[in-house]
Amino acid sequence: MRIDNVEIIKDLARGAVLLGTGGGGDPYIGQLLLQQEVREGRSVEVISADSLADDALIVSVAGIGAPTVLVEHLQAKGICQQLLQKMEKQLGQRVDAIIPAEVGGLNSVIPLALGAQVGLPVVDGDGMGRAFPHIEMVTFSVYGNSACPMIIQNELGDTIVIEKASTNRKAEDIARVVAGSLGAMVYSALYPMSGKDAKNKAILGSISYCLEIGRGIRESRAQCTDPFEGLMSLLNRPDLDRYAKILFDGKIVDIQRETRDGWHFATVTMQGLEDSHDEFRLELQNEYLTAQRNGRTVCLVPDLIATLDRETAEPVTAEKLKYGQRLKVIGLSAAAMMRRPECLEVFGPRAFGLTEPFVPLEELSP
Amino acid sequence: MRIDNVEIIKDLARGAVLLGTGGGGDPYIGQLLLQQEVREGRSVEVISADSLADDALIVSVAGIGAPTVLVEHLQAKGICQQLLQKMEKQLGQRVDAIIPAEVGGLNSVIPLALGAQVGLPVVDGDGMGRAFPHIEMVTFSVYGNSACPMIIQNELGDTIVIEKASTNRKAEDIARVVAGSLGAMVYSALYPMSGKDAKNKAILGSISYCLEIGRGIRESRAQCTDPFEGLMSLLNRPDLDRYAKILFDGKIVDIQRETRDGWHFATVTMQGLEDSHDEFRLELQNEYLTAQRNGRTVCLVPDLIATLDRETAEPVTAEKLKYGQRLKVIGLSAAAMMRRPECLEVFGPRAFGLTEPFVPLEELSP
Repeated sequence: MRIDNVEIIKDLARGAVLLGTGGGGDPYIGQLLLQQEVREGRSVEVISADSLADDALIVSVAGIGAPTVLVEHLQAKGICQQLLQKMEKQLGQRVDAIIPAEVGGLNSVIPLALGAQVGLPVVDGDGMGRAFPHIEMVTFSVYGNSACPMIIQNELGDTIVIEKASTNRKAEDIARVVAGSLGAMVYSALYPMSGKDAKNKAILGSISYCLEIGRGIRESRAQCTDPFEGLMSLLNRPDLDRYAKILFDGKIVDIQRETRDGWHFATVTMQGLEDSHDEFRLELQNEYLTAQRNGRTVCLVPDLIATLDRETAEPVTAEKLKYGQRLKVIGLSAAAMMRRPECLEVFGPRAFGLTEPFVPLEELSP
Repeated sequence: MRIDNVEIIKDLARGAVLLGTGGGGDPYIGQLLLQQEVREGRSVEVISADSLADDALIVSVAGIGAPTVLVEHLQAKGICQQLLQKMEKQLGQRVDAIIPAEVGGLNSVIPLALGAQVGLPVVDGDGMGRAFPHIEMVTFSVYGNSACPMIIQNELGDTIVIEKASTNRKAEDIARVVAGSLGAMVYSALYPMSGKDAKNKAILGSISYCLEIGRGIRESRAQCTDPFEGLMSLLNRPDLDRYAKILFDGKIVDIQRETRDGWHFATVTMQGLEDSHDEFRLELQNEYLTAQRNGRTVCLVPDLIATLDRETAEPVTAEKLKYGQRLKVIGLSAAAMMRRPECLEVFGPRAFGLTEPFVPLEELSP
């Protein structure tokens, strides 16, 4: 699959907002970077992991920090190229392909822009099939890959290499404070892995899935009176072990936001359009963690929760939510691998301080 | 000069407390590391910078963070050796000698212990002739050397390389947060420089000077009724542009301490032993910044202020000061290079938020 025109990029970014599950950083700016590549005649090939040689070198590239600052730091182009070169120097091997760490939000688009710039393919897969706030919250990490050597750079050329961290959580802690002292938004090359690792440990097909969602919403709008009809039939894919449901249809009556310890916390309260006693609540820690309807949990992390405009089905990030906004909230089951016990330990409810054990969406909201 | 017996090590550590000007970390633990080397039959040669080849590779090694934690992290031995190896790998060149970043406090002894461990000589000099809290507060930095590549490691093997920082102050900021996330106390190899740089930019002879002070105090105790007599005649060295004065003789009547933004702030108030209206005040930010007698400044950073037991002339770090303690306070002019305008910009009064311009000790307290 080749990303070579503006429409496909917009579709991708739309899907990335849905899979960003409220957070992940708005892909809008990353999309502009990618559009510029396409306008200048470059494009990027998204390849199946199957086509990788077992000993190929695959690397993730991601923005770390507060994506809201990205607009002031639009130097991603040169930085990411330098990051790749530095990773190659560290490992003494050429990088063969790039793999996104996350397919939701901003970091879904940055690897594609980089791939177009340097002419490297991007693997159709990622480490979570959604967005998460921490770098250790990827399947690569759960299944034994180190985030290190992890190279971090800002637009001034300040460069830090985390050569070795005792755990990937420790690498996260270090990267977080380094990002803070380098000016809030930095870029990183991390998780060098073999082609074999990418094939076995990644959530495969997630870029195609993201694109399919974005395109599906656009096409549904054109074809149906209700764009959610097309979207829901696309998301309900028993063949892929994916289950989806519209959890709520209503309007926002309260938003409590708090920024604490570098996290964006929020509680979004909604009411049914006709029944004001029908209450729906979303809890957010950068990404949506739980959805409750009238006090009963209806969807739980790592299953995905997405907020969409109730007329156009356009996915909306949590930072853009406003009082009075009318939304439909969708629950979407995470990729099967993400629900394994060893994965839930790293990014299940408990990892976010919740006491409820994980219950799959299809049981909570049959 | 060879450091090969326990007495010389104790003399060095005593001198390092005086030159630590209240801070720098108590060299007691570092001294134990060095004593152990000597007991196991190793020793370290302290060489004159003159003997270095212009193209020799000289590196600083230092502890960074809260030295109070060092006692729980006595793994310095293996770590510092690994740091040297990593620096050699980064630069593709063998390290020829070690140079202390500071001669006051803990970091005066650590380079010597490492030198004994790996059989490398230590240059008789440092970057300040005293202790300062920041890594950019060295003459090497003022005269154009980069602290990078700066390698940071803790006892778990977590390793960070600051490959490039736009300024040495930025490297300090990064190192500080990295140290925090690696567990408060880490070791670092930094300021790789040529033999020529060491000759031209270091405060030369500072280890000999430190040793001379420590030995002088010990010998004065044995010879004189007042150990300060011998000490003061040793410190007043017009041939070396060094001037010293006993600024006050009294007892502590109040200590206000505060730990804020990672700094140890304190105000120490003393009274004259006979005249309770004779008031003396020391301001500390990790190290002593100012001494005032009855409201008039009598000594100002980067000139050195040292607190000593008034009977034994044993130098006392600020963290050990107690209510009621009887002390003599000494002012000591900084090395001539340290008083140049470009140096005062980096570690003069203004660098510590003081509004008073620097005035030499010999003018403030003639």
